[in-house]
Amino acid sequence: MNKKSTKNDDNLNISFEEVKIHKLRRIPVVGGDVQHYITKNDPGFIEFGEVYFSRADFMKIKAWKRHREVTLNLTVPVGEVKFVFWNEMKNTFREIVLGDHFYARLTVAPGIWFGFQGLSTPTSLVASLTDMTHKPDEVDRREKTDISFQW
Amino acid sequence: MNKKSTKNDDNLNISFEEVKIHKLRRIPVVGGDVQHYITKNDPGFIEFGEVYFSRADFMKIKAWKRHREVTLNLTVPVGEVKFVFWNEMKNTFREIVLGDHFYARLTVAPGIWFGFQGLSTPTSLVASLTDMTHKPDEVDRREKTDISFQW
Repeated sequence: MNKKSTKNDDNLNISFEEVKIHKLRRIPVVGGDVQHYITKNDPGFIEFGEVYFSRADFMKIKAWKRHREVTLNLTVPVGEVKFVFWNEMKNTFREIVLGDHFYARLTVAPGIWFGFQGLSTPTSLVASLTDMTHKPDEVDRREKTDISFQW
Repeated sequence: MNKKSTKNDDNLNISFEEVKIHKLRRIPVVGGDVQHYITKNDPGFIEFGEVYFSRADFMKIKAWKRHREVTLNLTVPVGEVKFVFWNEMKNTFREIVLGDHFYARLTVAPGIWFGFQGLSTPTSLVASLTDMTHKPDEVDRREKTDISFQW
């Protein structure tokens, strides 16, 4: 498959097709930093449906999922996570690593397959904000091995 | 001061005055659990302003803060954090520990002083959802030592 790799260092302030990347502020505070995520006035915010969290255990891969209606806003407040996006129509892959070294929010439009992998021990945290509440029938899933990506 | 302590084991499904406690689901998933936080249909949700994160470093205390307008919905997706709420009018304290051992969301009404302390190494994460975007002039702050609570 035609794999387009994006190194983390190249990801600052860039976006690609169905995924917009918004750099976020991490404010140093004694006792524990404050980390922005999303406000209702931010680019990429549509409306509020739900926020939930997904752990990404070290080296574990969670893939593949595609939302047909939901726009996601993702970030990694703890640890490091590699995200891989697959555009099935164009058969192109894009990778990005979010977390302590590059703290940003991804706005993921409906229709793109994606998965992610934890890169930190023992686990990392992915926060997901959706623009509608959970509807199981708008999510498509494939087995990890169904899409031949070299994790 | 009149300190009312609430043991963590007693906290299941109870609420007190200005703070409502909502137990949350943590769903076991291979590769990393999924943890509910809040949907627009949940009790305690008013409207969406912002979500941000605060780290709570081990044994560090962040106190005191009071919102005059904002309702907060707080949870601890990673680690363990002790929250202390002080009702200035009644001079009563309430404590609760959230995190891995008791995963829940707190709805905190405006007008109550609160602070928190990280109980996990190296750090824990507090997620805060507000019902309006940040307005510095609706937040009151006091030094940790201004309120004589035995952390």
